[in-house]
Amino acid sequence: MATQAAFLAGFPQLAAQPGRGRVELGAPARVAVAAIGSAKVGARAGVKAVAARLGVRCRASLIEPDGGRLVDLVAPEEGGRRAALRREAATLPHRVRLGRVEKEWVHVLSEGWASPLQGFMREHEFLQALHFNAIRGADGRMVNMSVPIVLSVGDAQRMAIQADGATRVALVDDRDRPIAVLSDIEIYKHNKEERIARTWGTTAPGLPYVEEAITNAGDWLIGGDLEVIEPIKYNDGLDQYRLSPAQLREEFARRNADAVFAFQLRNPVHNGHALLMTDTRKRLLDMGYKNPVLLLHPLGGFTKADDVPLSWRMKQHEKVLEEGVLNPESTVVAIFPSPMHYAGPTEVQWHAKARINAGANFYIVGRDPAGMSHPTAKRDLYDADHGKKVLSMAPGLERLNILPFRVAAYDTKQKKMDFFDPSRKDDFLFISGTKMRTLAKNRESPPDGFMCPGGWKVLVEYYDSLVPSEGSSKLREPVAA
Amino acid sequence: MATQAAFLAGFPQLAAQPGRGRVELGAPARVAVAAIGSAKVGARAGVKAVAARLGVRCRASLIEPDGGRLVDLVAPEEGGRRAALRREAATLPHRVRLGRVEKEWVHVLSEGWASPLQGFMREHEFLQALHFNAIRGADGRMVNMSVPIVLSVGDAQRMAIQADGATRVALVDDRDRPIAVLSDIEIYKHNKEERIARTWGTTAPGLPYVEEAITNAGDWLIGGDLEVIEPIKYNDGLDQYRLSPAQLREEFARRNADAVFAFQLRNPVHNGHALLMTDTRKRLLDMGYKNPVLLLHPLGGFTKADDVPLSWRMKQHEKVLEEGVLNPESTVVAIFPSPMHYAGPTEVQWHAKARINAGANFYIVGRDPAGMSHPTAKRDLYDADHGKKVLSMAPGLERLNILPFRVAAYDTKQKKMDFFDPSRKDDFLFISGTKMRTLAKNRESPPDGFMCPGGWKVLVEYYDSLVPSEGSSKLREPVAA
Repeated sequence: MATQAAFLAGFPQLAAQPGRGRVELGAPARVAVAAIGSAKVGARAGVKAVAARLGVRCRASLIEPDGGRLVDLVAPEEGGRRAALRREAATLPHRVRLGRVEKEWVHVLSEGWASPLQGFMREHEFLQALHFNAIRGADGRMVNMSVPIVLSVGDAQRMAIQADGATRVALVDDRDRPIAVLSDIEIYKHNKEERIARTWGTTAPGLPYVEEAITNAGDWLIGGDLEVIEPIKYNDGLDQYRLSPAQLREEFARRNADAVFAFQLRNPVHNGHALLMTDTRKRLLDMGYKNPVLLLHPLGGFTKADDVPLSWRMKQHEKVLEEGVLNPESTVVAIFPSPMHYAGPTEVQWHAKARINAGANFYIVGRDPAGMSHPTAKRDLYDADHGKKVLSMAPGLERLNILPFRVAAYDTKQKKMDFFDPSRKDDFLFISGTKMRTLAKNRESPPDGFMCPGGWKVLVEYYDSLVPSEGSSKLREPVAA
Repeated sequence: MATQAAFLAGFPQLAAQPGRGRVELGAPARVAVAAIGSAKVGARAGVKAVAARLGVRCRASLIEPDGGRLVDLVAPEEGGRRAALRREAATLPHRVRLGRVEKEWVHVLSEGWASPLQGFMREHEFLQALHFNAIRGADGRMVNMSVPIVLSVGDAQRMAIQADGATRVALVDDRDRPIAVLSDIEIYKHNKEERIARTWGTTAPGLPYVEEAITNAGDWLIGGDLEVIEPIKYNDGLDQYRLSPAQLREEFARRNADAVFAFQLRNPVHNGHALLMTDTRKRLLDMGYKNPVLLLHPLGGFTKADDVPLSWRMKQHEKVLEEGVLNPESTVVAIFPSPMHYAGPTEVQWHAKARINAGANFYIVGRDPAGMSHPTAKRDLYDADHGKKVLSMAPGLERLNILPFRVAAYDTKQKKMDFFDPSRKDDFLFISGTKMRTLAKNRESPPDGFMCPGGWKVLVEYYDSLVPSEGSSKLREPVAA
């Protein structure tokens, strides 16, 4: 989605779900699963009422987390565990310093987004993630896990830890403050080339996550069980949006959601996105769900330099809700704390799997999800269709209903974003990323109905705030979905 | 296994099977499965006797092929199908020429080694192989499939086929003789970089299979259902060793095998290998199996230039049986027709999976299986332990019992190959590949008991037959297991 911002929106025939590949293979259609899920909700209504009277929050209608239980790795405040862990972490002889990305992974792991993972991967988990994009759980079933969640150490630290026979290490932040303890540790080789090749399908230089978190990382990986001293906070004014999977599940239950559809994004929302989301809700209502709730879920971790920063995106998303483009009644906006890999078909599985743990049973997938331009060749890194195809076939995601985008564009006759109609193709305008950038940069307005005015204003302000360093050609690219 | 020929042999504690990773994950131990299999055999003895009286060959004791039915893609001689197919293939307007490796894949596919695959992979199969090393079958279950089995076409041919709307193409050999027909075809992009990165975990230049079969291949892949005109023959004097999975199953049934243990190799057999194989049989007998049969299964397809050629290896294997190192009564020697990828942990899954289809329920895995030196860095391409770890966790191989090697070496006190005993480590001699090569090159004898004399003589003859081109340092490397 590097150049066509207006490629989006709307899933075609639900009956044709979940993608040709899977249907050909004869596996049960996921939409059928959705219908069963819906029936279950009805059957459990009585239980729910009783539970409500007893003051028990009933989440029977939400999809079960991977592994059956949502992992929570934050030491409880009660019982002195937190204080004890803090004391221990302060005195442990071995301290592994977390970079930005590693701290984000501690956050992700601690809240159970990667359930049933209990900490940074040990080798058997790392190998399964690399080779199978899935890990066999204690019950023998596969859970999806497509990206390695690992922590590296250098050779000197590895030798020191192993010389001591240490089984527990402290994880500390960039100012040496203890964040967590990793226990029952296992240290194994970090073959960077193999990890990169199997995760990205290329070893070309210039992959943003690789440059940020792998190239200069240690040659060893350290896995173990994680226990975090207290909830991870960023104190950037956005923490109230960082809802954990448990908090999201509570919110969906509070709203009596009987279907949750997640929309992962790392870009401003325009009216094409909004069309897709409102259309999805309508279709879910048509399928018999009583209250489908949208999880609008911008990614909040590491992104590449030319993506719009999180704080600007959150301002823009706020406007979209304020101005009624999306209905706040049926929309939960929250931040997904994961760093971004830009690993296309491999990463989209992680994006989907994490949302199961947050209670989503429908996942909207776009063209070329988590894709980017090839870092050295003049083409997109991934085939634009591979993301949704791989997602629809991925082991461990059988319970998730995949909703592929339908192409949308600006309809010049209706003066709004609409699903592309090939029978009158000349009426449609595809507003590319380059076009949108140029408009915002020049403080011009996009065609009426492309984005809500308040949201557009945020974008213009963002580009105003950038000091162009080497002329406009270096200006950042804000629009890929 | 690039340098230590004597690293081999013997599986340690069966109780500790099937590898730490899996045991930690709490999945049922595979040895338990073996025991159940054994019990089943007993329970079915009556059925077997009845079947024998009725002249029906009973294979109840053999493991079921992947997908439940062994695929056979050779047109039957009866009913005129073969003649009709031959006529059609001769007249089809589009003819795809098979290279050496592609023809080997036609052979592999036609006999059902890759069951349930019905032909060259379509895109949904290719993507699943690349990302998950497994493909979901029609019954919803995963079958292992770790290497892409694909056929490429160039851009011009793709355009011609698509312009015609052709659904069937002829596959022809290097002299334009029709071999097979591919039907219900699907053409999709051949992203070579991504394929190589995900299969080998590197994109470094110099991978033998890549140079042989990918670098100069077309930029498109053509998948479809395969129908082969007649059984593939090589007329090299070795066809009698090329038993199909169906023929192997018949042979195992004829011998009343109640367990089949497969040993994949592409190198000469020395007495360390033999020790491992006889020890394995003994242990299987101890487990209660009545007649475990060894499938000694040298790979017969494409190998890299410095491996010992198939014809020499077969001569050497013949000597090993003639001289009684292995018992012919409980050993079946046959050729596995697959080309070699040298893709380590990815490829070993293919080697194991194909043997399930041939009736093997035990698979012996060595140190660094299907490994080689990194083509550009000074190290082995894969971690020596990853092969057996990945194999023990691979989706679709749950039914297979994995038997890891135990280290063996030459015991100078006993003057024979034996399992390495660390308590008297100075008694053991590790005979490296370099050492073995130097000995054979100089027509010297190895230590007494390292290899049977007839087998060693074959090796010496092979090296005699080579004309060294640039001095001994370029001489070929014969010994990695």
